[in-house]
Amino acid sequence: MASLSEFAIIQRYFSQCDVPPSVDNKVIIGIGDDAAVLPAPAVAQVIASDTLTEEVHFPKDFPADAVASRALGVNLSDFAAMGARPRWITMALSLPAADEEWLRAFAKRFAEDCKLYGVQLIGGDTTRGQLSVSLTVLGDVGRDAAPQYLTRSGAAAGDDLWVSGSLGKGAAALAMLQSAVDQPNWQCDEELRQDLLHSFYAPTPRLSLGQALLPLASAAIDISDGLLADANHIAAQSQLQLLVEADALPVHSALKAFHDQHKVHQWALTGGDEYELLFTAPCAHAEKIAALAESLALPLTRIGKAVAGEGIHLVCSEGSAWQSVVNAADLPQGYQHF
Amino acid sequence: MASLSEFAIIQRYFSQCDVPPSVDNKVIIGIGDDAAVLPAPAVAQVIASDTLTEEVHFPKDFPADAVASRALGVNLSDFAAMGARPRWITMALSLPAADEEWLRAFAKRFAEDCKLYGVQLIGGDTTRGQLSVSLTVLGDVGRDAAPQYLTRSGAAAGDDLWVSGSLGKGAAALAMLQSAVDQPNWQCDEELRQDLLHSFYAPTPRLSLGQALLPLASAAIDISDGLLADANHIAAQSQLQLLVEADALPVHSALKAFHDQHKVHQWALTGGDEYELLFTAPCAHAEKIAALAESLALPLTRIGKAVAGEGIHLVCSEGSAWQSVVNAADLPQGYQHF
Repeated sequence: MASLSEFAIIQRYFSQCDVPPSVDNKVIIGIGDDAAVLPAPAVAQVIASDTLTEEVHFPKDFPADAVASRALGVNLSDFAAMGARPRWITMALSLPAADEEWLRAFAKRFAEDCKLYGVQLIGGDTTRGQLSVSLTVLGDVGRDAAPQYLTRSGAAAGDDLWVSGSLGKGAAALAMLQSAVDQPNWQCDEELRQDLLHSFYAPTPRLSLGQALLPLASAAIDISDGLLADANHIAAQSQLQLLVEADALPVHSALKAFHDQHKVHQWALTGGDEYELLFTAPCAHAEKIAALAESLALPLTRIGKAVAGEGIHLVCSEGSAWQSVVNAADLPQGYQHF
Repeated sequence: MASLSEFAIIQRYFSQCDVPPSVDNKVIIGIGDDAAVLPAPAVAQVIASDTLTEEVHFPKDFPADAVASRALGVNLSDFAAMGARPRWITMALSLPAADEEWLRAFAKRFAEDCKLYGVQLIGGDTTRGQLSVSLTVLGDVGRDAAPQYLTRSGAAAGDDLWVSGSLGKGAAALAMLQSAVDQPNWQCDEELRQDLLHSFYAPTPRLSLGQALLPLASAAIDISDGLLADANHIAAQSQLQLLVEADALPVHSALKAFHDQHKVHQWALTGGDEYELLFTAPCAHAEKIAALAESLALPLTRIGKAVAGEGIHLVCSEGSAWQSVVNAADLPQGYQHF
């Protein structure tokens, strides 16, 4: 699949992307032939593709290492939402020019992250064009002959609704990078602010959580389009209504001191790029989920429940600061079910 | 993997991409969740990715249906070269704007071609950006527990070198589209000229040939970068020299009447975009290969042989019209082994 010069680029920069031999990702034919040949998975294979384009998914002059981390994190997040194990990756990299310094920084981080998540680059294609990274992740699900995975359609009325990590960070980080935030007026611990930015530069795919949720959750999705939009996918595909308790939403700590809480609430409800898992689970599993949060050192917060009906219903207690955004006209269209 | 609006585009335009039920490509989870879940192949899985970008891989304002045919043809050609069976496809489509007319024409042809080749679109991602189509094809190889596939590294000294179809058409078509060809001076049957152009708009991946060659060929590659460049991949990876007999090269019929035969010979030797298979096979299989050509109604021409040594050696008989390009300084760099 790679031409001479493409092949040189891939050989030179990406040969370091091998995973440690302890990870069982052995390929039959890898980079350097027309296609890669891989051992068949035991039960079922999983595939997901996602593209990140400059000035669409990340700002112009975004650091090369952050482009790598973000591309991989965003793609693996889809696997997390299915409870799947990622194993191999192909990359279509489009570059305006073969900038060696950029490529070196990009490839170094890409290799580090591949190692971190146990995935292996097995093929690719570099072309000239607007900067964009299109990854396809291949992996598997299932043990003991039965494919086991999470979908958006398995929620049942009565299930609890949960979210991992914290909210609002994706949209807030983007606003910071676009200088749309009045930072001098924002009294915030510097470490918390850096943590918030880091989640945009290098989102952590919740892979361990997704796999651990296989026996516990009834439906799952990753929050890439915003809490309400992604909750709406679960509601629509599971044919029920989700009650979201606004007061329960775990806003990122850096945002608690932000001067405009109305803005923070909008970010938490509708901001994309969170890469947290939103999932439903029978109430009977609440204790196991709390224990899982502890063992993964990752907050898991119950934020609502599934009931008969359709769409999303956002609720909050009388006098809550969230009230200003509930039913507010400035929430994007598409959530008409409040 | 798809956002709300992306999902609408995929649902609206690409739901027609299902293959007939006679083709066994059943998916477990298809378009519309975070990732697709597919049954495990019996023996080994094969994956290849390729990107086509406007003004790099096809001219500006290239017809939408031709973009679809070309993207699919180019990607499936990698599978042909491995002797693999394509089954599923994911698409990352980048568009400057959501032009409904363009999308309709693109999706219609994409669906037709998917049906033709028995592949099924199982997921994707649409983004805003420079027009480009990045496809990842997933499929399998092997029967009876043994993975069986063609690589670039299996040629042995003494093997014959073969090529399918005709040569020169990719580069000639591109030159025609770029108005770099003095067409009024070119006495050529119109049907032949259209056939040549068609091979650029909609290259035919040699899938049946690739699979039929599994028990016959020792190495194979598809000619995407040009005959000499791709022959060089086989030579390098098989660690031998390929003798290419210039007089034997099957130049496309439309080019036989072209006024500048020096140009034609350059196109045939170094022009990319042929999407023919170049393969080696033991001499003992020559008759079977001739019979295969007949059964597939596809010319297969013996154009040289593999010997000890390295690189490509281009030979032609005394007084041949090809002599002007052999060792000529105007051949691109990278084939220093003449």
